[in-house]
Order: sequence, then structure tokens, then C-alpha cells
Amino acid sequence: MRNIKLTIEYDGKRYLGWQRLGDSEKTIQGKIESVIAQMTGEKIEIIGSGRTDAGTHARGQVANFKTNSEMARGEMLSFFNRYLPGDIVVKKVEEMPERFHARYNVKGKQYSYYVWNNPIPTAFERYHSFYVPDKLDMDKMNAACEKLLGKHDFIGFSALKKTKKSTTRTIERISIEREGSMLHFTFIGDGFLHKMVRILMGTILEIGSGKLSLDVIDEVLENKVRKDAGETAPAQGLFLDEVYY
Amino acid sequence: MRNIKLTIEYDGKRYLGWQRLGDSEKTIQGKIESVIAQMTGEKIEIIGSGRTDAGTHARGQVANFKTNSEMARGEMLSFFNRYLPGDIVVKKVEEMPERFHARYNVKGKQYSYYVWNNPIPTAFERYHSFYVPDKLDMDKMNAACEKLLGKHDFIGFSALKKTKKSTTRTIERISIEREGSMLHFTFIGDGFLHKMVRILMGTILEIGSGKLSLDVIDEVLENKVRKDAGETAPAQGLFLDEVYY
Repeated sequence: MRNIKLTIEYDGKRYLGWQRLGDSEKTIQGKIESVIAQMTGEKIEIIGSGRTDAGTHARGQVANFKTNSEMARGEMLSFFNRYLPGDIVVKKVEEMPERFHARYNVKGKQYSYYVWNNPIPTAFERYHSFYVPDKLDMDKMNAACEKLLGKHDFIGFSALKKTKKSTTRTIERISIEREGSMLHFTFIGDGFLHKMVRILMGTILEIGSGKLSLDVIDEVLENKVRKDAGETAPAQGLFLDEVYY
Repeated sequence: MRNIKLTIEYDGKRYLGWQRLGDSEKTIQGKIESVIAQMTGEKIEIIGSGRTDAGTHARGQVANFKTNSEMARGEMLSFFNRYLPGDIVVKKVEEMPERFHARYNVKGKQYSYYVWNNPIPTAFERYHSFYVPDKLDMDKMNAACEKLLGKHDFIGFSALKKTKKSTTRTIERISIEREGSMLHFTFIGDGFLHKMVRILMGTILEIGSGKLSLDVIDEVLENKVRKDAGETAPAQGLFLDEVYY
């Protein structure tokens, strides 16, 4: 059997997220699986690198599936982009060794988060950013990012309940760039817990606006109490940029 | 009476264009006039710098209206952005001399047109660009732009029938920049006829893909025959960037 790796871009606005639910019509995974069924005649489950929330976008989500189809990779690419809705695009189709697994083999991920930071809103980027009209203190936000770097138990910055699985992750990099009114946050790490980037973002922004003190980072890393951190920033500002293997 | 100038950004995707039609609900002008009625209690007609087609966007459309309202400019700005749909944003409210007229006083305009030029489509920019997978010859397209510069009768590159009004316009600048897969065309001129930028774009792109020869520019400027030019490029790639007074 062939093992096919897909690199996928999607605008999450119209979807309930990556993961297929009962009704396949409203998830990215469901849409892709339908097209594979059309393409190969096989009923196949694809494995994503991880879920993305409803409304969250991806520039480089990765998934794999096994198939007996003999269709060439280039033909598959065309087939996907002819039959998928326009807000889901397959960017690459690769042939992988049998053992490649899009979730188990993840070594790291990069996410972006966009904040439209201007008293005047944006007509174009409203589904691809979080609108924050308040003044934000860049120094304080950079200091917050600095404190988050490294290996920590991030459970307090996640939507997870206590679990036996490890909730320790390493963040290698968080950067903030301003491009006009748009603040672009980049997160690189070996893995991110459920809603972790959004909760980190909510916390960093509340530190920037003065609603929370910088100490909250150390406190939540220590006490692991979700409610001491900031609000969960909205899904529509978040992009899964790249998955590292 | 006060004369108020608005600078307006909008995502044209959901609308039938700028100009109010019978049903006010689906046009940008109609939406703005409804909010002004709410704001001032007056039933006011606003004057736009010109129409934009259904699906076309604006970063800097300009309109003016006369009002007896005494509301401060900053309050108006907030009121607009609170009550307008999120895909229409008022960026500036200015107080103008009585004689300022958003259409009659136009000295020039700048438009952008975006072309997504890659075999793989884009999930994010599909309503803000025209998807052209073909190879495009930049030298030929630049030569076509060069030929269009200056003062010409552009009626053959417009959707206008013969008219007594002058159809001579001056194009000061057309530039093409590549930003990754996106080609960004900029047009600056003293005015543009109905659908002129879209027909110029269709023609330039057909010259770039080899479907039309470069000579077609001189021919259509000379013979003024619309059907000898290229197809009308789709509205969704077009942005009204700025209106000069």
C-alpha cells in the first residue's frame, strides 16, 4: 500500500475545525476524505498532524493516508484542487515510507497569530485576525514571551483537565512583528496543548493592555490554574503555519 | 449645513457594488446611507467618487454628504464603525468646504489588481485576486503597460457605448510587482472609464499568456473596437486604493 502525505492550506472560517464529526460536511478532514473516496473509490480515514479549532486556519497542515490507488501524485494534486471547495487547497502530495505517521512523527509546529491593533477596524482581515483597539505595550508583551520560552508544564495555559499524559512542552521561539496595524506573533515549539496558543495569546495581550501583570506568567506556570491566565483569544487569528518532522 | 467627507474601506464580496439600487440592502452606498439615517435622523443621499462593480473592493473610496447634524467627527467615526457591517469600515471623517463634491472634484485615482499566478490555487486570497495558473511573460506584460501610458481615447477598453462625453483619459503609471505567487498591478490615472481597469487587465494578461499579441494595444487604441481587446478580468481582483483631489 502507498502512504501519501498531504500538505494542506485552508481558510477555517466556514468549518467546525479539522476533525471529522458525525456530519462530515463541516470539517476539513471530512471534506478531504470525501474527495479521496471519489478519487480512489476507497473509504479511507486520513490522519492529521493534530486538530485545529473551528475558525482556525492553516497554511501547512499535514495529513497522511494509505491507499491502493495507482494514480500519479500530480494527478492526485489536480484532482484534489478540482473537487475540494475553494477554501481548502492541497499544496503538496508526497510519497512516504510505510511507517510515516502524520501525528506520531511530529517533531514540532509553527503557529502564527494576527492581531489588528488600531482604533479603526479592518474590512479585509477581520476573519484572519483578532481586533484589539487598545494600546498595547510592546516591551511588556516581549517580556511575557521571553518568560514563556523553554521547557514548562503548560497545563495552566491549556483547555485540558488533569491528565496522565505529559503536559510539558518546550517553546523555542515567540516573536512579535508589527506590519502596519497588524501584529504578527509567531510560536515555534515541540508541541502545543489544546487551545494553548490561544490562551497564551489572550494572556500576552492582557499583559500588553495592562489588565494582567507580567507576574501572571510565572504564577500560572507554577500553580497550573487555568483561570489565573488570560481569556482564550479567538480562533480566527490563529494559523497553523508548518509541521516539522 | 456641514459637508462631510468619508474615506471608506470595503470588502465588496457580499455586495452588488457601490451604487444604491432599488433594494438598499446589498450595496455599499445603501448600507452607509442607512447608518447616516440612524445617526442624524436625516434621509441623506451620499455622493461617491464613482461606482465600483459588484465584488470589487476599496481601500480608499471617498464620499461626501451634507448634514445639519452637530455630532462631532470622532463620534461619527465611532457610530459608523459600530453600526456598519464588519466588511465596510469608515477610516476617516473630515469637515470640508461647502463646495467639495466627491465626484466632480476628482483629480485622479489609484487602483490595484491582484493576480494569483501559481499552478496551486490560494485558499485565503481567492475573493481578493484572480487565479491565473498559466505562465505569464513579464517582459511582454511590462511592454503592454508601457504602451498604455499617456493620453488616449480608451473607449475600446471600456464597457461604454459611443457617447458624447469625452472618453479620453491619461494613465500616468502602471506597475507590476511580484510578491511570491501574487502579482500586484497598480494603475494611476486622471480617471478610468466603466470597467476599463478590468478590461485592461484582461488584455494585459492575455498578452502575458501569449493568447493576444502585443500589437492589440495599439490596434484597440486606434480602432476603438471593444471586442478586439481581451476579456474583462473578474471584479474580485480589483481594489480602489485612493482617490486624489
